[in-house]
Amino acid sequence: MRHFTAESIAGLDERFRRNLINSLHGVRPALLVGTTSATGMDNLAVFSQVLHIGANPPLTGILFRPDSVERHTLTNIRNNGAFTLNTATTAMAKQVHQTSARYPRDVSEFETCGLTSIRMHSSHAPCVAESPIQIVLRLVREIPITENGTILVVGEILHIYLQDDLISEDGFVAHHIADSLAVAGLDAYFGLRNGQRLSYAKPDEPIQCEPL
Amino acid sequence: MRHFTAESIAGLDERFRRNLINSLHGVRPALLVGTTSATGMDNLAVFSQVLHIGANPPLTGILFRPDSVERHTLTNIRNNGAFTLNTATTAMAKQVHQTSARYPRDVSEFETCGLTSIRMHSSHAPCVAESPIQIVLRLVREIPITENGTILVVGEILHIYLQDDLISEDGFVAHHIADSLAVAGLDAYFGLRNGQRLSYAKPDEPIQCEPL
Repeated sequence: MRHFTAESIAGLDERFRRNLINSLHGVRPALLVGTTSATGMDNLAVFSQVLHIGANPPLTGILFRPDSVERHTLTNIRNNGAFTLNTATTAMAKQVHQTSARYPRDVSEFETCGLTSIRMHSSHAPCVAESPIQIVLRLVREIPITENGTILVVGEILHIYLQDDLISEDGFVAHHIADSLAVAGLDAYFGLRNGQRLSYAKPDEPIQCEPL
Repeated sequence: MRHFTAESIAGLDERFRRNLINSLHGVRPALLVGTTSATGMDNLAVFSQVLHIGANPPLTGILFRPDSVERHTLTNIRNNGAFTLNTATTAMAKQVHQTSARYPRDVSEFETCGLTSIRMHSSHAPCVAESPIQIVLRLVREIPITENGTILVVGEILHIYLQDDLISEDGFVAHHIADSLAVAGLDAYFGLRNGQRLSYAKPDEPIQCEPL
């Protein structure tokens, strides 16, 4: 068993610490955030720090580090209040990761990463045509995390587009059929296996399992 | 292609909407939050809305719905400022899910779900002995999300315990070796497959891939 304390974490090599803490909890969705700049340039960036905040109203949170490459995205959201979230498939892993490269502001990651922008709605932000699930949001509010200068951006879902075969009778979205891409830390990508849906848990009843 | 708008989402059956919006983005880590009540009862509950907020200081956020079964956990964190996060393996899926049942306050989910509480530190909160990765945190702050009454609890990592074979040379935590459990929505559990680490993305260099 390895043991790290607050003190030993503070003393770690910076890259080691970043990898350790960032990958510690496990996998998250690898999502492409689409925005448009004031000059009309479509921007795309991979994010994984996304929270389901609530279903009614449908609210999503994304955590931003304003001092990183992600600032193009945040600037664009502030400019026109619009952004999209797009899921990726495992086959898209390299393209997704390539959006994290530090391109100049006048370069669109859609072109450099070989992805297609699409607008099926009146929003200012583009969706990713290759993504099985495309979500259009409007900016609701920024919540500053004063402890380290990060910002939780709260968005409301305005549109959801998803392939017909991904939506179950009870609303569940079948990420095993979408072959959705997950990410741990900054650079480790995974597919999903051995899915199972479990029945509502009650104190005195055994859980039923439905393989996916 | 299925299309939902803000209006059609608002008009959906409540259960359908909850499943749709909750599972929309993809998988997240299925984490067990350990706490201790004022009377000394150890509590355990599954959470998936966990954010990596920062590495230095090491900060984690968890989103709470105060009107749900999770309130035992939040009450305990408020009482003594301590909680733990524990990863699960795919073999633990049913036990993890069972912690979401509505047990009375004087019942410990450790016992009813067949898991073992362990304290290797001076914290008030118990870890899960069966978990490959155990994290002890202290409460830093609560951030209210006024739009729907949820609460983002920010915690600082005080201790990390993890199996020796899970930590890579550069700090990356090997969730494919841990066989970490992921969850989509409220009840769909997954394992990981086909892991790959990708090299740092640069504008003019092809990405290198290291299979995991």
